Amino acid sequence: MTRYATLAAILSQRIQQGLYPAGHRLPSVRTLSQEHGVSISTVQQAYRLLEEQRLVEARPKSGYFVHTQRAQAELPAMTAPVQRPVDISQWEQVLELVRSRPHEGLIQLGRGMPDIAEPTMKPLIVALRNAARHGDLRSLYYDSIQGVAALREQVARLLLDSGCQIGPDQLLITTGCQEAISAGLRAVCQPGDIVAVDSPCFHGTMQTLKGLGIKALEIPTDPLTGVSLAALEMALEQWPVKAILLTPNCNNPLGYIMPDAHKQRLLTLAQRHDAAIIEDDVYGDIAYHYPRPRTIKSFDEDGRVLLCSSFSKTLAPGLRVGWIAPGRYLERVLHMKFIGSGATATQPQLAIAEFIRGGHYLQHLRRMRARYQQNRDRMTDLILKYFPAGTRVSRPRGGFMLWIELDEAFDTLRLNRHLEPQGVQIAVGSIFSAAGKYRNCLRINYAPKLTAEIEQAVQRVGATIQRLMPSSVLQPQTD
Amino acid sequence: MTRYATLAAILSQRIQQGLYPAGHRLPSVRTLSQEHGVSISTVQQAYRLLEEQRLVEARPKSGYFVHTQRAQAELPAMTAPVQRPVDISQWEQVLELVRSRPHEGLIQLGRGMPDIAEPTMKPLIVALRNAARHGDLRSLYYDSIQGVAALREQVARLLLDSGCQIGPDQLLITTGCQEAISAGLRAVCQPGDIVAVDSPCFHGTMQTLKGLGIKALEIPTDPLTGVSLAALEMALEQWPVKAILLTPNCNNPLGYIMPDAHKQRLLTLAQRHDAAIIEDDVYGDIAYHYPRPRTIKSFDEDGRVLLCSSFSKTLAPGLRVGWIAPGRYLERVLHMKFIGSGATATQPQLAIAEFIRGGHYLQHLRRMRARYQQNRDRMTDLILKYFPAGTRVSRPRGGFMLWIELDEAFDTLRLNRHLEPQGVQIAVGSIFSAAGKYRNCLRINYAPKLTAEIEQAVQRVGATIQRLMPSSVLQPQTD
Repeated sequence: MTRYATLAAILSQRIQQGLYPAGHRLPSVRTLSQEHGVSISTVQQAYRLLEEQRLVEARPKSGYFVHTQRAQAELPAMTAPVQRPVDISQWEQVLELVRSRPHEGLIQLGRGMPDIAEPTMKPLIVALRNAARHGDLRSLYYDSIQGVAALREQVARLLLDSGCQIGPDQLLITTGCQEAISAGLRAVCQPGDIVAVDSPCFHGTMQTLKGLGIKALEIPTDPLTGVSLAALEMALEQWPVKAILLTPNCNNPLGYIMPDAHKQRLLTLAQRHDAAIIEDDVYGDIAYHYPRPRTIKSFDEDGRVLLCSSFSKTLAPGLRVGWIAPGRYLERVLHMKFIGSGATATQPQLAIAEFIRGGHYLQHLRRMRARYQQNRDRMTDLILKYFPAGTRVSRPRGGFMLWIELDEAFDTLRLNRHLEPQGVQIAVGSIFSAAGKYRNCLRINYAPKLTAEIEQAVQRVGATIQRLMPSSVLQPQTD
Repeated sequence: MTRYATLAAILSQRIQQGLYPAGHRLPSVRTLSQEHGVSISTVQQAYRLLEEQRLVEARPKSGYFVHTQRAQAELPAMTAPVQRPVDISQWEQVLELVRSRPHEGLIQLGRGMPDIAEPTMKPLIVALRNAARHGDLRSLYYDSIQGVAALREQVARLLLDSGCQIGPDQLLITTGCQEAISAGLRAVCQPGDIVAVDSPCFHGTMQTLKGLGIKALEIPTDPLTGVSLAALEMALEQWPVKAILLTPNCNNPLGYIMPDAHKQRLLTLAQRHDAAIIEDDVYGDIAYHYPRPRTIKSFDEDGRVLLCSSFSKTLAPGLRVGWIAPGRYLERVLHMKFIGSGATATQPQLAIAEFIRGGHYLQHLRRMRARYQQNRDRMTDLILKYFPAGTRVSRPRGGFMLWIELDEAFDTLRLNRHLEPQGVQIAVGSIFSAAGKYRNCLRINYAPKLTAEIEQAVQRVGATIQRLMPSSVLQPQTD
């Protein structure tokens, strides 16, 4: 065990023994450093670990305190999807989710929208306006099919934070992460091929597989560490898997960060079975700790990892600017991007490049990381308060989504139908599975400011679940 | 023969007999109306026809004059592509063309860029800035996957001009026409299927077929009326053609407008053989005459036509906003669009909707139609002046491209290599063919202001062609 883990274990024990009660101030970093003969940074790492375990909370300028919210939801179980390649269904439910648009009176707890109302976004609006200056027509022309060079340079710089040294010429700007993944898949797969995915898996990715006629092989996934490597290895031995498609950092919907050791082992497995890895890192920059987690791509030596990301979750989804670092598949991905939508819109590329160059992006990330982490705790409290006992809740380490597992017999499709007239929308669990598993699960977004209105919406969801619970099945059914 | 055609024939004869010499003022509309006992509008139609034949030119506020430019280039021959389905090649040449971006010192005669420097574009810049207002965050959110409703309403209104009554709910906003065609193709075809295309055919479309693993069946095409219906019928009888993909209005690269009667017969053929029609109308709004030509879609009764277009040629390509009216394939196209790039960027949609609503779009079209028609004549004059005798030149009725056919033995790939060091780029003919035909052809863009610099570039192209002509093959070769 490392020093910081040892220290964290000691502190954890003391908290659980009640030596430091809830809300109590914990010893300062300096005190612990002297007391245990370890470095300041070791103590900080220990406290960070305890923060992640929600045992401790940091209060700005005051130090560390025992978490006042001691009740902790049970985690969802390791998932157990079908262990063979399947065709993907569920398009109708996805369409229902993505076709809706924000409007007065509908509370969209289901969609993957970041909060864009923070003041740290302001310089981006200015940059967008500046990119549409009179007399400067650059933003109206096609730029290079590979993307605006200034933006590729900034993205290359950002990638250093995730351990990647990738030149701007090895990057391709795309119309959102969706296009990155779609072009990446088309570059490495043919219809009928098999792709291994984490499970649950983002519904947009699932539908891409469906649209391309690719079969999904869902791998059992742990809610804290990600895809089971043992199960993946068995799958790779049994099936001709062309690619492994994963969101290892701040997974959507589970929120875990795959440990670095797992990332390395996964890469070794992919090499042994000659599979490509499509890595969706769209939430990686809003991991709650800094420096942000490494990507699988950062360990890649033979160019088999296609790293996909975008500014849709870190800045704003309506910009439609993403990127891909396609490794050895660059030329083919470029072709797929060209035929898919041509060049990506120029103006938002220019604006984002300017925004990053001015240091505004990292400033915005700092703010959003803290905001989302606070919201995670508050939303978890709301779920514990309003949802039935026994509800299992994920413990995200980044992003802004909670995965909620209800009683096995519960049906969230039915829940959604009951919520619709109440003006609340959730994402049903079944769209995160190829063959409609996870019907007893739902995903909730905690990005926006958690106003009284949102608390009421969560309360309504909870009450509706209580009402629809199998134990109350004797009530007259109305649907 | 209709009345206006009869009148046009009479006037044409008089001009050719020298009764009205070059530059001479022609009788006024009122005079001819009285003289021939026909309506004012019949005379106007007759004059419009003569304008299209380049026998007559209208001078604002002065009336009609005999065209001073009497020299007329010979038209390219009816094309004769390979009469069987083939896989598409030529990606490297296309990549070379589209990878380049505008920079000082390179004159891009080869790319399909409109002129965006006209003052009628100014309200669009204002609208783009307004769409990124402080406090109004709409432009940063995802809007509906189907596209911003306000824009779909405006597009539906514009479509009336081409004879189409299509509701906003039957439209889908896309990331450029490229995405419209790509999603349309994926909605109706599988890899290995056969699609009939006009020939020459836009290289972006060709590459889409290649990327999707679809075979192209190139149909002989007339430079004035489009695809040969007789040849198409034979092809449909011989091969299991899934879709017919055409640009019937202001064709790229040939510039023709398919007569309405042909459009109707083509639709009947498609019905008989149960093929879908993918209609690329991206240049349709900049036909030189008004009202603009009808689309095949306007004759469609059973929803088999997928009408694709964008604002990339009429406004600006860097906006990346297009649309598709997919008829009976709506749901499937929506799926393909969703998995391809997700929603289309919101801000340009809001801006364009505002621009059209304010009447600025039609105003801009009026200006550009006149500008491009003038440029067509001036560019044709330059070609006649600087290119070798015997050069065949298309006679576009819309858009801003000339298709130029040189001696059969000439190689434009070699020409381009010689032009590169001279800072001039053309589009080589072979990329408009599935299997590299049209090597003796090139496409030239006449959208920008025809400055002395551009005239010099055309002169350099002409001189280089003269130098590389097979008759001068005895000169020492340097490539």
